[in-house]
Amino acid sequence: MRVNEIFLHTLRKGLKPGHLMTDPADCWLYSYDNSRHHALPEAVVFARETREVQHIVQCCHDFEVPLVARGRGTGTPGGAVPVQGGVVLSLEKMDKTLEINFPDRYIKAEAGVLNQTIQNIAEKSGFFFVPDPGSSAYCTIGGNIGYNAGGPHAVKYGATREHVLGLTAVTGTGEIIHTGTYTTKGAVGYDLTRLLIGSEGTLAIITEAILKLTPLSDFKNTVQITYRDLASAMQAVIKIMSQPYLPSALEFLDESCLKLIQYSHSDAACMLLIDIDDERAKKNIIEASQQVGLIEIHFAENTAEMRRLWAARKALSPALRSLSSKKINEDVVVPVSRVPELLEGLKKLSEKYKIPIVNFGHIGNGNIHVNLLTDSADQCLDEIFNLVISLRGTLSGEHGIGIEKMPFIPRVIDPPTLALMKQIKKVFDPKSILNPGKIFPDEDKL
Amino acid sequence: MRVNEIFLHTLRKGLKPGHLMTDPADCWLYSYDNSRHHALPEAVVFARETREVQHIVQCCHDFEVPLVARGRGTGTPGGAVPVQGGVVLSLEKMDKTLEINFPDRYIKAEAGVLNQTIQNIAEKSGFFFVPDPGSSAYCTIGGNIGYNAGGPHAVKYGATREHVLGLTAVTGTGEIIHTGTYTTKGAVGYDLTRLLIGSEGTLAIITEAILKLTPLSDFKNTVQITYRDLASAMQAVIKIMSQPYLPSALEFLDESCLKLIQYSHSDAACMLLIDIDDERAKKNIIEASQQVGLIEIHFAENTAEMRRLWAARKALSPALRSLSSKKINEDVVVPVSRVPELLEGLKKLSEKYKIPIVNFGHIGNGNIHVNLLTDSADQCLDEIFNLVISLRGTLSGEHGIGIEKMPFIPRVIDPPTLALMKQIKKVFDPKSILNPGKIFPDEDKL
Repeated sequence: MRVNEIFLHTLRKGLKPGHLMTDPADCWLYSYDNSRHHALPEAVVFARETREVQHIVQCCHDFEVPLVARGRGTGTPGGAVPVQGGVVLSLEKMDKTLEINFPDRYIKAEAGVLNQTIQNIAEKSGFFFVPDPGSSAYCTIGGNIGYNAGGPHAVKYGATREHVLGLTAVTGTGEIIHTGTYTTKGAVGYDLTRLLIGSEGTLAIITEAILKLTPLSDFKNTVQITYRDLASAMQAVIKIMSQPYLPSALEFLDESCLKLIQYSHSDAACMLLIDIDDERAKKNIIEASQQVGLIEIHFAENTAEMRRLWAARKALSPALRSLSSKKINEDVVVPVSRVPELLEGLKKLSEKYKIPIVNFGHIGNGNIHVNLLTDSADQCLDEIFNLVISLRGTLSGEHGIGIEKMPFIPRVIDPPTLALMKQIKKVFDPKSILNPGKIFPDEDKL
Repeated sequence: MRVNEIFLHTLRKGLKPGHLMTDPADCWLYSYDNSRHHALPEAVVFARETREVQHIVQCCHDFEVPLVARGRGTGTPGGAVPVQGGVVLSLEKMDKTLEINFPDRYIKAEAGVLNQTIQNIAEKSGFFFVPDPGSSAYCTIGGNIGYNAGGPHAVKYGATREHVLGLTAVTGTGEIIHTGTYTTKGAVGYDLTRLLIGSEGTLAIITEAILKLTPLSDFKNTVQITYRDLASAMQAVIKIMSQPYLPSALEFLDESCLKLIQYSHSDAACMLLIDIDDERAKKNIIEASQQVGLIEIHFAENTAEMRRLWAARKALSPALRSLSSKKINEDVVVPVSRVPELLEGLKKLSEKYKIPIVNFGHIGNGNIHVNLLTDSADQCLDEIFNLVISLRGTLSGEHGIGIEKMPFIPRVIDPPTLALMKQIKKVFDPKSILNPGKIFPDEDKL
């Protein structure tokens, strides 16, 4: 069954007036995300609390209507695009902070609260919430959790998976579940919290989360290091990652990126942008950086300069649009020691397919944002993913699968493991109404 | 069906000679663990590789025979006790280290490798594996993963859940699955790694693991702080946990513990034993410790003294046996700010039920080892768990549920969430052969 008048009537009954839209012009705004895809939903609804989400799921379950939950649509692999139509549920009005508890180091918040809102609250008391994707000013914590978002600080502190204590969620049958604890430790039953983290809205709709806070260090510095050649930079990265005091960010920018940010040294082949929040790291990192191709180590002189250096890095992704109207943005990850082989291989593929490839990203984790400046590169992408897999890497470090990387899933997850995931999907969502057509390439066979 | 000659014949075919034992005298050695429970298995088998584990599971699946995997039987809640008979699979012969990769900070090892073996390998290159339960010299990493083991370092670095990258495991239908990645980041498909961590052998039998390594700090110190009253110690703990530089261990010992370790100050009500692996923490911790009831702050003068201080803490659990031949050992956890209420409540319950209660443990996580010096305390335990739940805590921080805490599970996990867990169990193990009679109080209804 699809969206019809009886369905809409039933749906409307449990919602606040104005919280159901069916006009295509209104719905259009919820048809796309930060991928290149769009698909028009038949209805868009807003919820203000878990009970309303439950009502919406129950309606969609009863009428077998696809339901796609979304935050602010900042995801890149198309996870929030309602490819099978149906209803889009925007959680943007669930934006309440429910509890702030600094002694126990957590904030409980609704899924629609912005990442930046949490950062602002935390910072005032000397804490931060570790996940800080490029879109942090605008993305929601529900989205961060749904896609296991990372960001530069993951190199030292881990991704979203390591920073959520518990969740409230509504399964595909409309059951409200509570996972996890208010404590940092817990060994009671199965870890459904982590199962939902990164499940891309296909198992349950996350409505509330208990977010773990991390104290801010009172030391902070940013250092920019440039090299004449890639090999020297890579030696430095591996050495930095082998000593005990991790940088709080370790980013890589290739030659094309340096042109984009108008870096002045013409013989620079690449740059490392490093944040240090532990003074002990400073000496070791400087030492590790001393490689033959080193051009310059530059420490930011003050907070304003730190911000300026990071602003350039953060502007890279939008700036790439100036080089090419179309780009394919991958976020593959390989073990750190294999990054040189990855970059070497990417260079060859760029030449072979005559597609400019620009690379930057979280090199300390081996998580490289590979940008193909083209709108179509099927065969090249195919080879990139095979290269990544041959280096013991995986398809995505922090963006997720969505629709973009769906066809490649069977290359990294073997058939019995993938079959289990599909069966778990069926347990949570037996009618496959939650974000259908995502993650699994053959979902019609579910 | 049960263990019979045809079953044993089939089982034997896939095993090395001598790797199947059925003599009750031999089986007896695999009938118990570190809980007070035992139950005789009908057969004990040993596997040397994942394929053999697969053969064993397939046999038990085909004949519907219960199968309990075990490491070295150091668990306290009875998780390794074959309460429904059947086969015990000991993984002790799967003790190979498969890959040591320091640049990428992981060790891949078979499930039967001892925690201490990993620590020894890691330490030589300046790393450690964070989980360090009291039994680390003897427990296996398979057991650590099965129960999400913690230990003193969890306060700063997290428990097992945060330190495993990927797993190889055999499900209850005999399928070999591979979860996770070789990388520290990954956002591809459902997080089956974390789902298996803490699942107590009820979903799949873990055969290999990729363990994340953490660099050892080159600074280390141990400090012992004593207080005249509990309130002062608690104020110090909360203050220590509110400043940015966490201690790498923050342990609590109550008055009874001080008598056991023969601490000399007669007016001491409790002690904090703190490890610091970041010099910046030192000043803040000393400052936070300055409470009215402070008796003494004593820093270890050298490595030998550090070891001596920790040896006393580690000896506590066995030393308790000298006070009472029987004890019930719980490992409840509450948010740190609620620990004073927990300890106050425990004191009242101790008086009400006239049961001596000795408390020590990982207070920085709110994870207290509550020792009831008696062999029967049903009503008192009942009230303890209700107290813990009223303080937003949970039943276990690091020991797990096993059979001991099974009846209390419905108090901390609501019916829809528990129902989902049971359905997940059915996906992995449709015939309920893997460690039956654990975690879920009404498993016959599965």
